[in-house]
Amino acid sequence: MTTIDLNSDLGEGYGVWTAGDDWAVLDLVTSANIACGAHAGDPTIMLATARAAVARGVAIGAHVAYRDLAGFGRRPVHVTPDELHADVVHQLGAMAAAATVAGGRVTYVKPHGALYNTACADPVQAEAVVRAVADVDPSLAVLALPGSELLAAAEHHGLRPVAEAFADRAYEPDGSLVSRSRPGAVLHDPDEVAARVLRMVTDGTAIAVDGSEVRVAAESVCVHGDSPGAVAMARAIRELLTAEGVELTPFAPGATTP
Amino acid sequence: MTTIDLNSDLGEGYGVWTAGDDWAVLDLVTSANIACGAHAGDPTIMLATARAAVARGVAIGAHVAYRDLAGFGRRPVHVTPDELHADVVHQLGAMAAAATVAGGRVTYVKPHGALYNTACADPVQAEAVVRAVADVDPSLAVLALPGSELLAAAEHHGLRPVAEAFADRAYEPDGSLVSRSRPGAVLHDPDEVAARVLRMVTDGTAIAVDGSEVRVAAESVCVHGDSPGAVAMARAIRELLTAEGVELTPFAPGATTP
Amino acid sequence: MTTIDLNSDLGEGYGVWTAGDDWAVLDLVTSANIACGAHAGDPTIMLATARAAVARGVAIGAHVAYRDLAGFGRRPVHVTPDELHADVVHQLGAMAAAATVAGGRVTYVKPHGALYNTACADPVQAEAVVRAVADVDPSLAVLALPGSELLAAAEHHGLRPVAEAFADRAYEPDGSLVSRSRPGAVLHDPDEVAARVLRMVTDGTAIAVDGSEVRVAAESVCVHGDSPGAVAMARAIRELLTAEGVELTPFAPGATTP
Amino acid sequence: MTTIDLNSDLGEGYGVWTAGDDWAVLDLVTSANIACGAHAGDPTIMLATARAAVARGVAIGAHVAYRDLAGFGRRPVHVTPDELHADVVHQLGAMAAAATVAGGRVTYVKPHGALYNTACADPVQAEAVVRAVADVDPSLAVLALPGSELLAAAEHHGLRPVAEAFADRAYEPDGSLVSRSRPGAVLHDPDEVAARVLRMVTDGTAIAVDGSEVRVAAESVCVHGDSPGAVAMARAIRELLTAEGVELTPFAPGATTP
Repeated sequence: MTTIDLNSDLGEGYGVWTAGDDWAVLDLVTSANIACGAHAGDPTIMLATARAAVARGVAIGAHVAYRDLAGFGRRPVHVTPDELHADVVHQLGAMAAAATVAGGRVTYVKPHGALYNTACADPVQAEAVVRAVADVDPSLAVLALPGSELLAAAEHHGLRPVAEAFADRAYEPDGSLVSRSRPGAVLHDPDEVAARVLRMVTDGTAIAVDGSEVRVAAESVCVHGDSPGAVAMARAIRELLTAEGVELTPFAPGATTP
Repeated sequence: MTTIDLNSDLGEGYGVWTAGDDWAVLDLVTSANIACGAHAGDPTIMLATARAAVARGVAIGAHVAYRDLAGFGRRPVHVTPDELHADVVHQLGAMAAAATVAGGRVTYVKPHGALYNTACADPVQAEAVVRAVADVDPSLAVLALPGSELLAAAEHHGLRPVAEAFADRAYEPDGSLVSRSRPGAVLHDPDEVAARVLRMVTDGTAIAVDGSEVRVAAESVCVHGDSPGAVAMARAIRELLTAEGVELTPFAPGATTP
Repeated sequence: MTTIDLNSDLGEGYGVWTAGDDWAVLDLVTSANIACGAHAGDPTIMLATARAAVARGVAIGAHVAYRDLAGFGRRPVHVTPDELHADVVHQLGAMAAAATVAGGRVTYVKPHGALYNTACADPVQAEAVVRAVADVDPSLAVLALPGSELLAAAEHHGLRPVAEAFADRAYEPDGSLVSRSRPGAVLHDPDEVAARVLRMVTDGTAIAVDGSEVRVAAESVCVHGDSPGAVAMARAIRELLTAEGVELTPFAPGATTP
Repeated sequence: MTTIDLNSDLGEGYGVWTAGDDWAVLDLVTSANIACGAHAGDPTIMLATARAAVARGVAIGAHVAYRDLAGFGRRPVHVTPDELHADVVHQLGAMAAAATVAGGRVTYVKPHGALYNTACADPVQAEAVVRAVADVDPSLAVLALPGSELLAAAEHHGLRPVAEAFADRAYEPDGSLVSRSRPGAVLHDPDEVAARVLRMVTDGTAIAVDGSEVRVAAESVCVHGDSPGAVAMARAIRELLTAEGVELTPFAPGATTP
């Protein structure tokens, strides 16, 4: 039977502020990238989101980021590798404790925003992030772009590398993502997106922007949680995959199942 | 053989700013209350301090606090019990990860500043702090004033309560500390302080401000690390105790000994 | 002709996070209490909100607060009077510069949340806030509860005290607000609220929770901007007042009119 | 009579943490670049430093920076020009209010750390900073490297550009600074530094690292305030210049003289 994981960014509020309809998304995905307090997520939100994930059997990932609340982790910050290593240790530890208190555990790490982009492309930043993960808990997986420096570093450190595809993003013929600055980079129709995800999962391919077929091999599909229509899109994907006999299951389930 | 623990607040810098001569103090004490990022301590400092503690066989305690860098955790903040619980989980998790990466582990928790004062006196705040500790790791000890609500809550939750005495503080006849606002509340002479600590450790008593003898039973003695003369005082205490055959050893040693 | 001011809290987002439909509310009120970065409001939001206010002829007030983003300024923080004074100077200066760049100016100060409650009741905190306002610009007005320590301090310092009423809050027979913890404390029906405001404005009275008539004299009426239905309520108030010939105008207009 | 200004970074503490011996440096320099809360400087420190500057007739400059306490403003942060503009408005406004309360006023702006380096070299960032200064108060001067994009932008916006030299830095033959990563980049001997400053001031030249003479024309000389020996160096400079008949005076004095 074919299986796939759906991951989404969650817990991205702060204090009184919220982002997205987390509880609805958690009913649809299988892995939750939970913000760790650096780009979003205060301790109360981290714990509440971890509890909601555990209650639904959703796996918990630490969504580590540059420490920049005002910029939501979307701005590169020129930290040194040692500063980045220490900050990932900090965020991962805080998330691990919240998961423990919620009755679960963190099973993977996925960098957020500018750190994701930088560490996918830059081997020095990738090494700093992955070294932190390996130092804290070498049983953790690392979720990132296929072919990225992050996954290469994970493999080098003996961590499990997990490649992800993007449900709502157009692909270039070489398998890279179409830049957000170009028209058509982001797809909005839930049915079209669901059909693309089904093809990725069952066939390992997608139709690229130029009409050619491109290979998209992934253990997890990223479903955005904070855009308007995010819940509808996640629901369309889940329903189509389930109807077609694809099992939705975490790529790295936690110890506790509800 | 009589043994005692000496604890001190460490890692209380932030970014470029430092507080106290941490490396010198770490050579003299047996337990390090390391700031967890709330009142002081960024991730880089937390990790460096944890490494320095492990290298010296000094036990690591999480020095949790109200989240208030500008106020150094000395100002009460009216957080709810659930907010406080979640924040202690966060700080404790971050410290635990730093200790793991340093090759050691956190073995106890001691609240800092305004949180120490509040949670020693207020059973609601004490319960919130201790519940967080118990939820994360019930093998941890809690270090606080003898007779405090914190130690009562620790006992209630099945955690090990550890009472501390204060090396450089004057005592009232009832065993409480003389308020800092009163003259003579803080002692400054290293030899006098060392002699007091020796008496506390070997005899379990101190001479109170009114000249009477007061019972001071403690498993650990707090030596301040950030005042001028702190190093000299800690050295005087260590030398006198050692000369008198008292063994200095952590009340809750970590797994790793150098 | 009868005139009244409607004030509302605005600019209460941070980074990617927003609170309320600010642009809609700004079309309906005459004075904007703009968050100054302490409980909400980053520099970009402060400047954008000031510009939107100036574009609509809405007066700009500095909505100063305890520095506590995670708690949205709703938690008392035990700052000293000098710390509070310096922080109000800081927030007021930052808001004044944003208003200047927007082509307007700050004309009044209204404390937010826990600081509002504390400084209305405590003469020491009230004095610290008002001294800061007087030190920066003695031409500013202070907006607060009638009979409060804040307005008394404003008067003492030669600042203009401006009393406000609350559109959607029930009143006790003595003119104080019914505590939010009691049922019926907050009113939700736009038409009922509009009718109450009309009575306050034209008659200077309201019907208290016990059915008695209570005197409510105010130069401004606070309309909340961040609750669901806030826009509908503000619109109902504006429409009823305008239909009944009441002119809506800022109590302290800025120098620049669009 | 020859005159020169000595400027130094001041107020670079935060909460309980201090940096440098500010009061001693303020007795020696004529212009204080005061931290505005972004890389250092809380509201209490800003106000106290402004008061100390006014009391000594030292001019007040706003030392604006990237918002990054943990990195002390030394790490580039990829903010957009509009975010940077708004943040400089914010910092400048807060500093202006503190100066007003202290009885003085801000007369110039000098960016700090990574922002100084970036905005000296990048016309987009320079424009964002200078546009903020011009929007808030076009009477302000801008202090930066001679030939920098910052001074070009200042001139373009009709602000007064003020070039500075560096007392303790070695120069390349082309007048640029020797990179800090190279040996000999920073000078440490107070007498040698004082002699160099005297030559800069009276002759407009310095001896470059290769022994050639290089032109160094500046209205102000930067004297670092936070290194060990900073006070001794500033004193040596002041004493030599004064002995040689050079008058030390702010390039942009505030309205208030003590």
